[in-house]
Amino acid sequence: MEPKKLTELKTLLAEANDLDSAVSVLYWDQATFMPPGGGNARGRQLATLARLHQQKSTNPKIGRLLDGLRSYEESLPFESDDASLIRVARRLYERAVKVPPAFMGRLYQHNAQTFQAWAEARPANDFARVAPYLEKTLDLSREYANFFPGYEHIADPLIEAVEYGMKATSVRTLFGELRRELTPLVHKIAAQPRADDSCLRKVFPISQQAAFGEAVARRIGYDFERGRLDITHHPFTISFAPGDVRITTRYSEAFLSDSLFSTIHEAGHALYEQGVNPAFEATPLGNGTSSGVHESQSRLWENQVGHSRHFWRYFYPQLQAAFPQQLADVPLEAFYSAINKVEPSLVRVDADEVTYNLHIMIRFDLELALLEGTLSIRELPEAWNARYQADLGITPPDDRLGVMQDAHWYDGMIGGAFQSYTIGNILSAQYLQAALRAHPEIPDEMEQGEFATLLGWLRKNLYQHGRKFTASELTERVTGRGIDIAPYMRYLREKYGELYKVE
Amino acid sequence: MEPKKLTELKTLLAEANDLDSAVSVLYWDQATFMPPGGGNARGRQLATLARLHQQKSTNPKIGRLLDGLRSYEESLPFESDDASLIRVARRLYERAVKVPPAFMGRLYQHNAQTFQAWAEARPANDFARVAPYLEKTLDLSREYANFFPGYEHIADPLIEAVEYGMKATSVRTLFGELRRELTPLVHKIAAQPRADDSCLRKVFPISQQAAFGEAVARRIGYDFERGRLDITHHPFTISFAPGDVRITTRYSEAFLSDSLFSTIHEAGHALYEQGVNPAFEATPLGNGTSSGVHESQSRLWENQVGHSRHFWRYFYPQLQAAFPQQLADVPLEAFYSAINKVEPSLVRVDADEVTYNLHIMIRFDLELALLEGTLSIRELPEAWNARYQADLGITPPDDRLGVMQDAHWYDGMIGGAFQSYTIGNILSAQYLQAALRAHPEIPDEMEQGEFATLLGWLRKNLYQHGRKFTASELTERVTGRGIDIAPYMRYLREKYGELYKVE
Repeated sequence: MEPKKLTELKTLLAEANDLDSAVSVLYWDQATFMPPGGGNARGRQLATLARLHQQKSTNPKIGRLLDGLRSYEESLPFESDDASLIRVARRLYERAVKVPPAFMGRLYQHNAQTFQAWAEARPANDFARVAPYLEKTLDLSREYANFFPGYEHIADPLIEAVEYGMKATSVRTLFGELRRELTPLVHKIAAQPRADDSCLRKVFPISQQAAFGEAVARRIGYDFERGRLDITHHPFTISFAPGDVRITTRYSEAFLSDSLFSTIHEAGHALYEQGVNPAFEATPLGNGTSSGVHESQSRLWENQVGHSRHFWRYFYPQLQAAFPQQLADVPLEAFYSAINKVEPSLVRVDADEVTYNLHIMIRFDLELALLEGTLSIRELPEAWNARYQADLGITPPDDRLGVMQDAHWYDGMIGGAFQSYTIGNILSAQYLQAALRAHPEIPDEMEQGEFATLLGWLRKNLYQHGRKFTASELTERVTGRGIDIAPYMRYLREKYGELYKVE
Repeated sequence: MEPKKLTELKTLLAEANDLDSAVSVLYWDQATFMPPGGGNARGRQLATLARLHQQKSTNPKIGRLLDGLRSYEESLPFESDDASLIRVARRLYERAVKVPPAFMGRLYQHNAQTFQAWAEARPANDFARVAPYLEKTLDLSREYANFFPGYEHIADPLIEAVEYGMKATSVRTLFGELRRELTPLVHKIAAQPRADDSCLRKVFPISQQAAFGEAVARRIGYDFERGRLDITHHPFTISFAPGDVRITTRYSEAFLSDSLFSTIHEAGHALYEQGVNPAFEATPLGNGTSSGVHESQSRLWENQVGHSRHFWRYFYPQLQAAFPQQLADVPLEAFYSAINKVEPSLVRVDADEVTYNLHIMIRFDLELALLEGTLSIRELPEAWNARYQADLGITPPDDRLGVMQDAHWYDGMIGGAFQSYTIGNILSAQYLQAALRAHPEIPDEMEQGEFATLLGWLRKNLYQHGRKFTASELTERVTGRGIDIAPYMRYLREKYGELYKVE
């Protein structure tokens, strides 16, 4: 029988969770269907709900119940649902109580204004307009970090908020290793002739793109009875409950890859959230465990599955049927080479798998420098451009394609915003390798358009657990070791070695 | 300068308002876009937010601030914004504190379950399935009424919740008067040949219906920059703020009137909400003042405007152009007679203007009998059918077309749910008559597709005030007297006297 204190704890946690879900619904609406006139009130409504959520998450009763449940927790196996719930709730509570609710309200209000300013300043290439907002964001990010005194690096509390157990040092070490192995591969590929991706740059009517993207999401296992796909400016996935996990995409008529792979990417996030044990609904266990593990799933489905030859052996004839004028004459191999074209480029979200992580490392290093105070917001555009020249050999022609391209710093804090993409790339290869060891038939099944074995393995080993295990606990359980760049580098070397005829 | 206490009061009221708006967004999403899997969590999320809203609306600090602001209020003119805000906030606060937050949570949870049961039982014509839910609804409705001891009739607190100042007795008296004048008119029309409405019952493709309905809503003044039109099962209007007022409709391919007039009806509600003074946003003044005044606007635009010859002299050629196959051969007069066909019928929402109020009176009397305990839920279907036979001369063939047709009792309390429709009909004629006295050019303008004079008059005299004045204060200001059936009966007699050649 569940102890009375646990029932009480679950009630309080569900209340906080429901407020968080309400924030999500209001945010989703804002990004998809809200008319222009609704913006002002919505900013205030979101700030109010965020403040109440913070109050409810830090209710001292939660702390007392968690204390009172310590001996019950210790009597249970580590992996039991109840012990995990208490453990994770305690970890989140102890973090949450450090941050005053009024700060969260201020942060939300500031974020809403900054996002608005960015949305207007970006098309005008007007960094000066957003610079004062970013300065305040940087102040708020430092203020947030200082709610967690005793850190080793000022970015640590911001990184730990999304990647429990990771710190600036450990990310720097990991990224340093990856960089050493990645750079020679990038150089070798750059010495080869560029792939031709002109077949992706024709006119692709949006209604057919939408139908095809939806069919792919459905086929890989995204459940439309428990979700939906809508249009937005900046694609995202959002979960209101395991039974309601929504994805969004955007369409470019002139470039097929844009929407197609963004839809698969978001569907990957959504498969994770839809796969969480429904018994965890409205508890802190009811979502994916960390940003990095989440990205591992979006990137696994988008890249290792969605950019593979196996995948397209099944889907390419359907894509050709959807776009006969554009693709009938394009052989599968030409299409495969086009979607996997490697080329140093300016825009992160359009980057190929090989150079993508260089984009992340630039952002990560700049975040750290800003927080450390060795770089100012005013110097940021120049520092950005200098790093692009040094790392990728190209300089953005303007800030639209430079420092203003990503929403992250304009919609949240500076620090902790980017490292998870690369962590996700690394983990995706570790997880897929483990799945292939257990089920070598997965690639053949993909060629038949069957994804149930892969999805089933991921659900059983990753998704169902929700937040029960930390990223490193999960990785340890699934792969027998910690985070490790070897499988990822092996994957890149094999795939791009063959494509670009480099060793 | 605004007193500090007033600023504090506004902050607390805005917080409560934001929770209420969040409830509205979650409800709107549930009714329009939510996937089936989201229903369970949504019920819980709505219950949590409703409970928190009730807590915040009854924060004792609000009571203390209201006490402290009494002398400031008395120093101001009655009509000033500040005095009105304090007066209305006090009235709502004094009502709200009588109801425990836990009750609101229980009510929401029960409503969600009942609505679900009704949505499944109704197509199966299974009243027995919903009867136990309705019994609990009746218990909850009585429990609610008893939070307001000292009432004259147990329905009074339920009626006053939506129609401040009205009681069972006053509604009964009003309805008695109306009934005495209406019944002879119904009988006279029934003795005449029925109008032919076959021109409305052809196949009308939904996409054209949608485009035409949207164009009409836009033309009469609904602002799509501050709202949107979506599809739902049971059309409604919902306001998240004066800048975000959304309407919904539904389409029947086989019957043109269904969506067209429901869209105009909801646009009427929305014109009211979009017309509220934006300075009242996030305060208790920021919405329409009562259900009856709200219905007066939906019914004014739907019926007195939208079913008039003036209106269709402008719009009918456009409607014919949208549906040439169906309507090219149908003259305006035949169409006008079809949309104004009077016929005793079973379904309230399809009823004509003349018999509509009989439907309302049946429901109102049954609600009162249920609350009084002179009628049981088990006996309700039979009582319903007997009243339809007595009042309209027809008996529903099943409960789908009988007691299960309206969502109201299955989605809220029993008591106070229906009287406002007829109150709205009566008021609509009083208000329009006042507008026509001020601007006799309005009918000619309508024939030119111009609605700005009418809308401007309504905004100035009704809409902008939001909840500043009660229904009776507003009616007194606008018409110089209280609620009065004479203008409404005169309108009906003139219009239908001409159509049916009765005096």
